Amino acid sequence: MATASKVIKCKAAVAWEPNKPLVIEEIEVAPPQANEIRIKMVATGVCHTDLYHLFEGMHEGGFPVVLGHEGAGIVESVGPGVTEYQTDFVVRFCFLIPGDTVIPLFLSQCKECRFCKNPKSNHCEKGWIADRQGEMSPAESRFTCKGKKLLQFVGTSTFSEYTVVNQMAVAKIDPAAPLDKVCLLGCGICTGFGAAVNVAQVEPGSTCAVFGLGAVGLAAVMGCHFAGAKKIIAVDINPEKFEMAKVFGATDFVNPKDRSKPISEVIAEMTNGGVDFSLECVGSVGVMRSALESCVKGWGVSVIVGWTDLCDFAARPIQLIAGRTWKGALFGGFKSRDGVPQMVQSYMDKKVKLDEFITHNMPLAQVNDAIELMKNGKCNFVCRCLQNIYKYKNHFV
Amino acid sequence: MATASKVIKCKAAVAWEPNKPLVIEEIEVAPPQANEIRIKMVATGVCHTDLYHLFEGMHEGGFPVVLGHEGAGIVESVGPGVTEYQTDFVVRFCFLIPGDTVIPLFLSQCKECRFCKNPKSNHCEKGWIADRQGEMSPAESRFTCKGKKLLQFVGTSTFSEYTVVNQMAVAKIDPAAPLDKVCLLGCGICTGFGAAVNVAQVEPGSTCAVFGLGAVGLAAVMGCHFAGAKKIIAVDINPEKFEMAKVFGATDFVNPKDRSKPISEVIAEMTNGGVDFSLECVGSVGVMRSALESCVKGWGVSVIVGWTDLCDFAARPIQLIAGRTWKGALFGGFKSRDGVPQMVQSYMDKKVKLDEFITHNMPLAQVNDAIELMKNGKCNFVCRCLQNIYKYKNHFV
Repeated sequence: MATASKVIKCKAAVAWEPNKPLVIEEIEVAPPQANEIRIKMVATGVCHTDLYHLFEGMHEGGFPVVLGHEGAGIVESVGPGVTEYQTDFVVRFCFLIPGDTVIPLFLSQCKECRFCKNPKSNHCEKGWIADRQGEMSPAESRFTCKGKKLLQFVGTSTFSEYTVVNQMAVAKIDPAAPLDKVCLLGCGICTGFGAAVNVAQVEPGSTCAVFGLGAVGLAAVMGCHFAGAKKIIAVDINPEKFEMAKVFGATDFVNPKDRSKPISEVIAEMTNGGVDFSLECVGSVGVMRSALESCVKGWGVSVIVGWTDLCDFAARPIQLIAGRTWKGALFGGFKSRDGVPQMVQSYMDKKVKLDEFITHNMPLAQVNDAIELMKNGKCNFVCRCLQNIYKYKNHFV
Repeated sequence: MATASKVIKCKAAVAWEPNKPLVIEEIEVAPPQANEIRIKMVATGVCHTDLYHLFEGMHEGGFPVVLGHEGAGIVESVGPGVTEYQTDFVVRFCFLIPGDTVIPLFLSQCKECRFCKNPKSNHCEKGWIADRQGEMSPAESRFTCKGKKLLQFVGTSTFSEYTVVNQMAVAKIDPAAPLDKVCLLGCGICTGFGAAVNVAQVEPGSTCAVFGLGAVGLAAVMGCHFAGAKKIIAVDINPEKFEMAKVFGATDFVNPKDRSKPISEVIAEMTNGGVDFSLECVGSVGVMRSALESCVKGWGVSVIVGWTDLCDFAARPIQLIAGRTWKGALFGGFKSRDGVPQMVQSYMDKKVKLDEFITHNMPLAQVNDAIELMKNGKCNFVCRCLQNIYKYKNHFV
């Protein structure tokens, strides 16, 4: 690659400070260092977590930053020591090389630490999420702009034409996969789908309730349906979302604004005492409580999927003492480098939907429009901001 | 039996009103009605839940009442339709008859409802706990005193020489079992032991923390040890309890009063990031939070065992999103009529300890002394109030 080992100048959407529009800037992206990969981004989604960092987060030391963590792209160059294990029929050794199609991961999988080796967890002691830093590796990022260092958001920063990630935070995927679709597997869809399938472990014939019908909630509905649930109650204060929820498998619909009773009572009446599984996909501590209280006593499982960390969630002890379980997980419990290629394959095999999640395709230059649509709930149900995929894809493929 | 079908006059400790000493009164105990059993109580423990009702509970409609729910006795007479299934080598049908040794149960097991038929739950749609009434059956109890109806506490009321329970709330046990020991299996010991073994599902080689070293906490320690945990951290603000915790298998000891850091940080340092399993055996919402936060991210499981329902428990969402699970259960997850006879057998086989829990033996007349000892923490570690067991036992055996 002509650009290998060189600094690349490219466009990126820079968040210079909280609560302000992003600015499309020319930035410098340094070559990958040891165990790192530079990726030419092809497509990216906009996720509520990007907006959370921009508008709601604690903002300490988190700016200037390049947001975005739900993308797909093509390897431009690799640093020393980059390898990747891939499972085919047998486990075999292969390299990540320029031209490979990849999805960068906000959650790493080193495959060596005690978390990666434990089948119960998808955490990893290495990578960004382990130390909650806004930077990719200790005290460094690979981005600069106007002489200033830019932080990398959750180690990915997909709102850039190029980014650099650690090899333990990248999934090599089927080169035939359409990157403008499978980019969604970098966060939201795996998060919702996996919360139902991996974390709640929804069972065939069970009853479920999904609170919040954004991308994550719709993916949770899809997960409940995939797992064989017989009744999937979709809950949202925006009834326009119910039609789409039906596409993903929802069977019943509740708009809390139409009800005078607490939603947990409404759901108890619909299900003879409560659902077997509930999934909170809003990121509201009040909804987390409702979701728990909507579960049947004895064996009900409620999963916190939506993200917030600004205040406590709470409930009465009897809610758990009565036999309910409260769980949560990042990224739907998927071990990232193992799970994402499998989800890509499931999409290619038409076992999971992705196309139906996308409401808008936009170039990077319109990223602020995409953010506004999502922020104001004006996009039909999910807004995805895409770069001009063919321009980049043709460059390598 | 000469007393069959007749009203029995006997002594009972009556709680006429909240926050007052119990009064030993002569009460009338009506004969058992359909599906009911009248039991001559032989031994009973005093449990913190009795004190909770007397001193802390909501007190609405809960008095006058005969407390006590951790007892063992002998069947005096049975009402029409009383049967019992007992598992021997094969499941066989047999009757509960006068002279059988039994443990009355605050948690019923009808073996017919959807909860009883589901292996995930030990709830039952019938019985006292199902509708949270202070009375045994709709609008009735079998106790009167001075012309007034007395409520039966959680359908058992073991602080009486005789009580009447429904057949779905009684466990028939090995007649060779010493009732002054196995009475403890009616609540506290099964609650703590089962929380570790059935609910947390403690694994061999794991690390555990038990918060609170009353009878339930010590039983939880015993359960962790039984399940093969390699490190069992006992946490209590009373260091005098540590020696006894060692008897039940505790390996490490933490007195929060000796530490300046939050206990979750102390435990994280002792265990490379937190324990695999934690059990809250205090009934304090603050301790419930500490117990959750003391678990390792990724797969840590925390179980609420202690009872309180006066205020909310709470934590930050990240505590669950990071992969922890928060659970709870009544009676340690044991299906009551199946589990209690098995626990009696485990005691007879010397697989679980009971004798070591008992600090005091007292007659019913000293029940207020027992309550005061327990209330003020002046008993060594567990106070058990016992009636004169031989008087009653010899009557039938």
